Amino acid sequence: MGLTLTEKILQHAVKNENLTRGSRIGLYADQTLSHDLNVIMTYLALENMGLEKKKVPEAFQYVDHNMIQADFKNADDHRYIQGMAEKLGITLAKSGSGICHFMHLEHYAKPGKVLIGGDSHVPACGGVGSFGLGVGGFDNALAIAGEPVYISMPKIVRVTLTGELQPFVSAKNVVLELLRRVGVKGGVGKVFEYSGEGVLTLNVSERATITNMGTETGATSSLFPSDEETLKWLKAFGREEDYVPLSADVDARYDEDIYIDLTVLEPLIALPSLPDKVVRVREVEGTPIDQVMIGSCTNTSAQDLLQVAKILEGMDVASSVELGIYPSSRTVIRELLKSPAYRSLVTAGARIFEPSCGGCNGCGFAPATGAISLRTTPRNFPGRSGTKNDQVYLTAPETAAASALRGVITDPRDLGKKPAVYTLPERFDDHQKDYLHFPGNPQAQIIKGSNITPIPEFGTLPDTVSLPVVLKTGDDITTDIICPAGALYLPIRSNIPEISKVSFHLVDPTFHDRAKALQGSILVTGANYGQGSSREQAAIIPRYLGIQAILAKSFARLHLANLVNWGVLPLIFQKDQDYEAILPQDVLQIENTGELQEGQLVLVRNLTQGTAFFVNLPLFQEDIDALKHGGTVNAVKYKLQAEGARA
Amino acid sequence: MGLTLTEKILQHAVKNENLTRGSRIGLYADQTLSHDLNVIMTYLALENMGLEKKKVPEAFQYVDHNMIQADFKNADDHRYIQGMAEKLGITLAKSGSGICHFMHLEHYAKPGKVLIGGDSHVPACGGVGSFGLGVGGFDNALAIAGEPVYISMPKIVRVTLTGELQPFVSAKNVVLELLRRVGVKGGVGKVFEYSGEGVLTLNVSERATITNMGTETGATSSLFPSDEETLKWLKAFGREEDYVPLSADVDARYDEDIYIDLTVLEPLIALPSLPDKVVRVREVEGTPIDQVMIGSCTNTSAQDLLQVAKILEGMDVASSVELGIYPSSRTVIRELLKSPAYRSLVTAGARIFEPSCGGCNGCGFAPATGAISLRTTPRNFPGRSGTKNDQVYLTAPETAAASALRGVITDPRDLGKKPAVYTLPERFDDHQKDYLHFPGNPQAQIIKGSNITPIPEFGTLPDTVSLPVVLKTGDDITTDIICPAGALYLPIRSNIPEISKVSFHLVDPTFHDRAKALQGSILVTGANYGQGSSREQAAIIPRYLGIQAILAKSFARLHLANLVNWGVLPLIFQKDQDYEAILPQDVLQIENTGELQEGQLVLVRNLTQGTAFFVNLPLFQEDIDALKHGGTVNAVKYKLQAEGARA
Repeated sequence: MGLTLTEKILQHAVKNENLTRGSRIGLYADQTLSHDLNVIMTYLALENMGLEKKKVPEAFQYVDHNMIQADFKNADDHRYIQGMAEKLGITLAKSGSGICHFMHLEHYAKPGKVLIGGDSHVPACGGVGSFGLGVGGFDNALAIAGEPVYISMPKIVRVTLTGELQPFVSAKNVVLELLRRVGVKGGVGKVFEYSGEGVLTLNVSERATITNMGTETGATSSLFPSDEETLKWLKAFGREEDYVPLSADVDARYDEDIYIDLTVLEPLIALPSLPDKVVRVREVEGTPIDQVMIGSCTNTSAQDLLQVAKILEGMDVASSVELGIYPSSRTVIRELLKSPAYRSLVTAGARIFEPSCGGCNGCGFAPATGAISLRTTPRNFPGRSGTKNDQVYLTAPETAAASALRGVITDPRDLGKKPAVYTLPERFDDHQKDYLHFPGNPQAQIIKGSNITPIPEFGTLPDTVSLPVVLKTGDDITTDIICPAGALYLPIRSNIPEISKVSFHLVDPTFHDRAKALQGSILVTGANYGQGSSREQAAIIPRYLGIQAILAKSFARLHLANLVNWGVLPLIFQKDQDYEAILPQDVLQIENTGELQEGQLVLVRNLTQGTAFFVNLPLFQEDIDALKHGGTVNAVKYKLQAEGARA
Repeated sequence: MGLTLTEKILQHAVKNENLTRGSRIGLYADQTLSHDLNVIMTYLALENMGLEKKKVPEAFQYVDHNMIQADFKNADDHRYIQGMAEKLGITLAKSGSGICHFMHLEHYAKPGKVLIGGDSHVPACGGVGSFGLGVGGFDNALAIAGEPVYISMPKIVRVTLTGELQPFVSAKNVVLELLRRVGVKGGVGKVFEYSGEGVLTLNVSERATITNMGTETGATSSLFPSDEETLKWLKAFGREEDYVPLSADVDARYDEDIYIDLTVLEPLIALPSLPDKVVRVREVEGTPIDQVMIGSCTNTSAQDLLQVAKILEGMDVASSVELGIYPSSRTVIRELLKSPAYRSLVTAGARIFEPSCGGCNGCGFAPATGAISLRTTPRNFPGRSGTKNDQVYLTAPETAAASALRGVITDPRDLGKKPAVYTLPERFDDHQKDYLHFPGNPQAQIIKGSNITPIPEFGTLPDTVSLPVVLKTGDDITTDIICPAGALYLPIRSNIPEISKVSFHLVDPTFHDRAKALQGSILVTGANYGQGSSREQAAIIPRYLGIQAILAKSFARLHLANLVNWGVLPLIFQKDQDYEAILPQDVLQIENTGELQEGQLVLVRNLTQGTAFFVNLPLFQEDIDALKHGGTVNAVKYKLQAEGARA
């Protein structure tokens, strides 16, 4: 039987494991990717492990998230990062060079290779047929150390694209359509593999917009084949030697099929405050807006911004609107400088920021209270913009630009303009100056700022967990809620005691104090708990505040892995009524955790109500064994200690 | 007898007052200038006064300081500002258009006119022969309301420039030389008027660098004549109709003379952490640096950045250095886009931020802990960068660029390069799109964010002040120390209770709590108290925390005016030993404040030590009368109430 594209790539990344759907597989990375925000915990973990040099074949470090430098903290982080990259032999793009996923797509992502990275949008590299896996900081450390990262072999969904996008309907609308259909939980445990004649109509940066934002479905990854368009892209960056053609076998077995006709797609928009609340722009046109942000790893390629510049050319941003633009990379800026595009953006009144993630994770450009913000970013989770009760819509750059001109949500087809005709340049400018290629240096100077605090140490899982419910929430709790994004909080991500103070503050400002006072508790939550980013702090903080177990209707994949790493027991309700019945402050008891086995049902007693119910344990035996040690972090530590004792 | 340039301009700005040095004169502004950071208090004051439309002939509003938008606060401020500008009929440059002083110089500053503005660097307009006066927010409100702003008629110092600057020795070095000679208190009560053949060798943006940073001497203003170079500048912006030739009469009487030979000037640099710690670059060359910032109202004209681009062209910023650039305005960016300059900056590895004040007042780009930062900004007060114990050097753009390449402080003449030959363009691009011209609209929507809190109300001065000394400091206390700059604090400047919590935290973290607990106290300080910015919060906060009087060796002019506005009694030691003798917590008593008269000596009893001494009262009778009401703010309020009662 033939293989899917995913299977073709992953079979080279595992050791003697078969790729049966749902089985536990250990992936060895060909490349790793890190960014400044999440990597601090990664490097601290690698220091604890005593790693002297990277073991993964290629490792890349970007600095794009925490760029404001409101005080010493960000700059201290950047310095520590540069020191660690120099020591370990990791290629570094210095701060301000651009957004990690896009720069990687431009300069280093390779068809057929597995990229493991400490961010949820790593699947952007699927645009060139590279399998991207977003992981938490600790798993990223394992990957850099040459160790496998374990996942459950995902189901593989074939997304067949037919037809061709119409003018002013760009690639973002394809992934918005996918989100409209499957929702923010629809991709959990799955890979979306794109195929069909429509694929050939999309160039690599368009494909990457789709694979990047595929993350919002909860998917493990998203993947395009490697074909002529891939070769064109690689050639344009002087990387034709990285090209290999790759596609699924015609008789490959898929678990599901989705069909999208590109020709009939219209401009779409996601309403506040989830990426799957997608409607046609037509349905909300005329809504007054206050702010437009064009940026993020999803949507500021040269093509995107040339299109925006063409729309803005000779016009003015509406006086009631602020338009902010974050280009993806220096390469993109240099492309814009070759035509009057950059000048058009400036003259129309856009605020052009340095290439970085910027406002996407609330690092600047927060909207005013109650203001409506239209963004090309992948996420509009509540409060992510930095402003409480924000009203963020997600859309494509063309809709964003048209709306900025009119001051109301506008279908870009109504402007009566012609879109720019974009052709990929034969050759982009040389970009090597944007990188420092460190060969590895044991004597590198490592300066650790005072805000970079040691990773907290946690104990083993008690045999009997008997603790009160500290918080009960509804569905779709994002990592932004557990561990807030935004310029005020990102700089303290490396400081667990500090950042823990604002955990869950958007839903319950008393959470931190209550959890800390209890010194041991259980969290009860709905479906898709932990959706969003890869930040492992969203697992560490609850653990730090004494949460031993989380009972949920379901978990996001990446967050589930982080919980196992950091020793929080994840359990899944069998019945909704069990979830309904639990009241805050009820004391729940789980016994004999030391004997937990893969596949078993776990009995939970509600001591307060005198009831009991069974829950599922969504883990492989290896994960369960790690949890008994207090998480994989501890398990690895004990293993290394034992090896050290033997040596 | 002939007139100085200052006298020629000011004689049209006063009513029936003669310009005797040291006399109290009320200046009526021809134009006002406001920026987002300080204007919130101004607009709140104008709302309290019930002003419906600006009364000053021309009023301008810029948004350049608080640009980060880490959460709702900045954006809420911007929205409130736009509403007030629309209501009052004030021309608004929307956020991100550029730095107020430079944009004003480009587009609106006029020879012979008096510009009053809510910022200390307003004298930048002296570059076109406009008399600039920096004032606090309340005085700015008075100016917008068409009321006079009172100052003591300054002494006038003639600075005669001879010769011509040599390659790589740019205008910044002229003002650094002035600071080296006169120091940060050397300009108090003075205007520096430039003359001599050397003047003709400097174009307007070079002159503005000098008048702008002249503020750091404590000067009331700095002024160049209006001549052919001025005409060239105005023509280049399509403003030839604003031109009038202006110069001092040959027999004008000056109070002092200073001579600077431009030909012999060398690249200079101010060491941490005061702008007058000036040495030759040669004396510190080779010092390793970590960060370079090229920006600020002082030093990012098109000429400055073209010079920087020429130095960086084809080279790389050192791997150990981060280079950040803040262009002055959109006009400057458009100029850079006309040549390969912008591209050279990007390719060399510079981080180019949006045109704004940025890192100059700590709004981003803070250095790492212990890092050395080289900046082209006008100030290097301790902690102003946003990082405690910072090490900020001030220098010219050429030295900054050369040092960024080498990674160590470098005399730009050592690069072996030729400087760019700069010619002012015949005509800059049209800039009108950067402004919203509001004619005034009583129905404008004013939305006041929750962080914009009402101005605190203060009572009258008690007849007997008998209070403990809450804090005793040394010389040169800056407004940055009293009311911190930096991205963490600027957004709460409109919220006195919040910002007061960090007042003096750089010198005494217990100050806020102690002062608040005392509910009434006295501050004792050294020379040049309140140097630096125009922020009136540096007067409001101490008043809010109960400080009734400040005993100092001397005061900065602008801050003294703010103290009078907000009702803090300023007193000046006659003898150093009186300052020396006072101990913290001593209770000092001043009696019969209701009978204070201009010129009188004031008796201060030290009740703790049982001693007494006389101090000077550095105020006009009108100021003293206002102080009795609790400050000019109260006096104006009572006057308006009385007028309302009569009407």
